[in-house]
Amino acid sequence: MEPLDAIRALLAPLFPGLMGVQLVEVTPERVRATLVVRPDLCTTGDSMHGGAFMAFADTLGGIATYVNLPPNSRTTTIESSTKFLRGAPVGSTVQAECTAFHKGRTTMVWQTLVRGADDRLCAVVTQTQLVIPA
Amino acid sequence: MEPLDAIRALLAPLFPGLMGVQLVEVTPERVRATLVVRPDLCTTGDSMHGGAFMAFADTLGGIATYVNLPPNSRTTTIESSTKFLRGAPVGSTVQAECTAFHKGRTTMVWQTLVRGADDRLCAVVTQTQLVIPA
Amino acid sequence: MEPLDAIRALLAPLFPGLMGVQLVEVTPERVRATLVVRPDLCTTGDSMHGGAFMAFADTLGGIATYVNLPPNSRTTTIESSTKFLRGAPVGSTVQAECTAFHKGRTTMVWQTLVRGADDRLCAVVTQTQLVIPA
Amino acid sequence: MEPLDAIRALLAPLFPGLMGVQLVEVTPERVRATLVVRPDLCTTGDSMHGGAFMAFADTLGGIATYVNLPPNSRTTTIESSTKFLRGAPVGSTVQAECTAFHKGRTTMVWQTLVRGADDRLCAVVTQTQLVIPA
Repeated sequence: MEPLDAIRALLAPLFPGLMGVQLVEVTPERVRATLVVRPDLCTTGDSMHGGAFMAFADTLGGIATYVNLPPNSRTTTIESSTKFLRGAPVGSTVQAECTAFHKGRTTMVWQTLVRGADDRLCAVVTQTQLVIPA
Repeated sequence: MEPLDAIRALLAPLFPGLMGVQLVEVTPERVRATLVVRPDLCTTGDSMHGGAFMAFADTLGGIATYVNLPPNSRTTTIESSTKFLRGAPVGSTVQAECTAFHKGRTTMVWQTLVRGADDRLCAVVTQTQLVIPA
Repeated sequence: MEPLDAIRALLAPLFPGLMGVQLVEVTPERVRATLVVRPDLCTTGDSMHGGAFMAFADTLGGIATYVNLPPNSRTTTIESSTKFLRGAPVGSTVQAECTAFHKGRTTMVWQTLVRGADDRLCAVVTQTQLVIPA
Repeated sequence: MEPLDAIRALLAPLFPGLMGVQLVEVTPERVRATLVVRPDLCTTGDSMHGGAFMAFADTLGGIATYVNLPPNSRTTTIESSTKFLRGAPVGSTVQAECTAFHKGRTTMVWQTLVRGADDRLCAVVTQTQLVIPA
């Protein structure tokens, strides 16, 4: 099984699977994914729920850290901050791309840009992952 | 229908409904809810997904703002920041309580504490809501 | 020399000294300080600079971690997030109080509330400190 | 007087002047500045104080918003979040560059990257400015 398929299989029964996150690319430098804005991912007003934006991005940051972990270690998100710039309407598809600001031995810092129709920026999520000896 | 039931009915087909958020109390001063950590709300390691924590809290902050809105206005989250302190294992129940730091005409700032077993603090989410003339 | 005086002496030639931060109380549970809003701590409009609020609070979180450090370790702030609720005019005095959300072996999370005249809340700063073996 | 000199003159008696912030470029698209890490901008360990990083960046985000304001309006920072990646030693010079994620009618979101020696990234500050009718 390809690494990308292995990660997809791992996520399927978990929260990213419930939401319908579709991984597109996973490398140590970059993780990309798409998400269809289903009605049950929305808040009132037929617009993607802020929590769905954050969960979508957090998934990418976690995977990005995972593929950069040294042997015998694991990771957990220790903090995350999000700016919401623009809504994403029900039925649209959002795309996210996650890249690193810092890949250290103790922490990694990732930023995920979530874009909607016409490639317009909807949300920016910056998160810190702790690297923990297993 | 009671206000609490009306809000529950509103959320049922939306993201909070997908996750299983159970509203316990909604007043202008405080919103409380519980969430059972189902397997499909987890990340690897049978532990609640960071995104599920953030979506759970964001739901409370949105409702808290909603019940404080002046007439002819609506709200959107403009930013949210989260510290993750402790995991919540699959099968456990987490409880959240949201209270205000600021309820202004232009913005409201809410903080949600999410607690797990033995009332231990798992996550702190602080978010800013914009109040928008409808 | 009292511990509080020792910390004051340590800070005097550093950034908190430049700003005029006055420590009032330092215990493992709580750090309190005051700051007079001098003209050179302001931004335009004769109001305390956002950066001065953040530097004031960061000082308290750093001290709070310092007095909780295990032997042979040191600390650094790894992230900080601030909500600004209300300005503080030149010539007024602001007071800050810092308490813990989490005091762990690897990280500590502190929240500092900065209040102005009439005890009204001006800023909320939540920060994560890394505990590093020396 | 050139616009850049006018802004320098405006800042000189304020907090950025106290710190020694040197503006290098101010356009609607980008603000750049440098700062010499004086001893009185440090924390213990002869390293730039976290608060000095945040105040340096907040200054750039404020100026960047200022030069984008529509007529008859003013701005205030409503929130700021910072990740600290690497220290900056006393005597070194740090450089910051601030660019926009969003320039809307109600809010603007700016990100400032602060770099030290060898252009290595030391801190990332993302902040939201409110645009207020004067």
